[in-house]
Amino acid sequence: MEQRVSLITLGVRDMARAVAFYEALGWQREDSPEGIVVFDLIGQSLGLYPLEKLAEDMGVPVERLGTGAATLACNMRKRDEVAEVIAAARGAGGEVLREAGEVFWGGVVGYFADPEGHVWEVAWNPFSPLSARGEFRWGGY
Amino acid sequence: MEQRVSLITLGVRDMARAVAFYEALGWQREDSPEGIVVFDLIGQSLGLYPLEKLAEDMGVPVERLGTGAATLACNMRKRDEVAEVIAAARGAGGEVLREAGEVFWGGVVGYFADPEGHVWEVAWNPFSPLSARGEFRWGGY
Repeated sequence: MEQRVSLITLGVRDMARAVAFYEALGWQREDSPEGIVVFDLIGQSLGLYPLEKLAEDMGVPVERLGTGAATLACNMRKRDEVAEVIAAARGAGGEVLREAGEVFWGGVVGYFADPEGHVWEVAWNPFSPLSARGEFRWGGY
Repeated sequence: MEQRVSLITLGVRDMARAVAFYEALGWQREDSPEGIVVFDLIGQSLGLYPLEKLAEDMGVPVERLGTGAATLACNMRKRDEVAEVIAAARGAGGEVLREAGEVFWGGVVGYFADPEGHVWEVAWNPFSPLSARGEFRWGGY
């Protein structure tokens, strides 16, 4: 299996609420197939899809599916942007789990959960710059 | 917030078992900081990190964190590769949730959970080819 993630799917109970949340953060949706809402990332896609249908596709009971143990991180270009995004997430109806603050390794980190409980890490890492294309390059410590 | 996922973190209870699983699928780990194991994706990274520490970082009880409602998809270049990856996941100790099979929109899909319950979709989509770099281009239906 190649080391690649083509598509990230977030299963959601309330599609309209979830879409509104990401749009309130400034995201632009793609022209999406019926029943799924797709946001273009860089070289991949993020889809919002009804949780019940996702469970059905997998062939597992919906009660099995939980959130938060897999997190998605968005790295910022500037230190102060972490607090700005955390504030934006709160304003859009997200739950702030951890306010933006310095961490031991020298960066700034905050966490929020979207209205469905999917958890995002917002980070500024001076040791792992973003490329011109907006891609993350892991820099280690 | 830019439309970008820099880093995907999977919280795991048993680091050694989780690392062994992804290595058994053929993944190569990066030179990683202590306490986290990083795999380079294309323009982003996937990290394995102890679930307890992830919960601590977020500031939430570990019991809150669940898996499966967010899935990661790896798109294949050839139709038959879906079944091959599903078989490899089973051989590596994953749980096959759905065997590779045709779906209504004309592609082939299978699902497996890694030993920690994180769910992967393995797909071949004739309408959304991969670019030369291995990136996914959403093609719609």
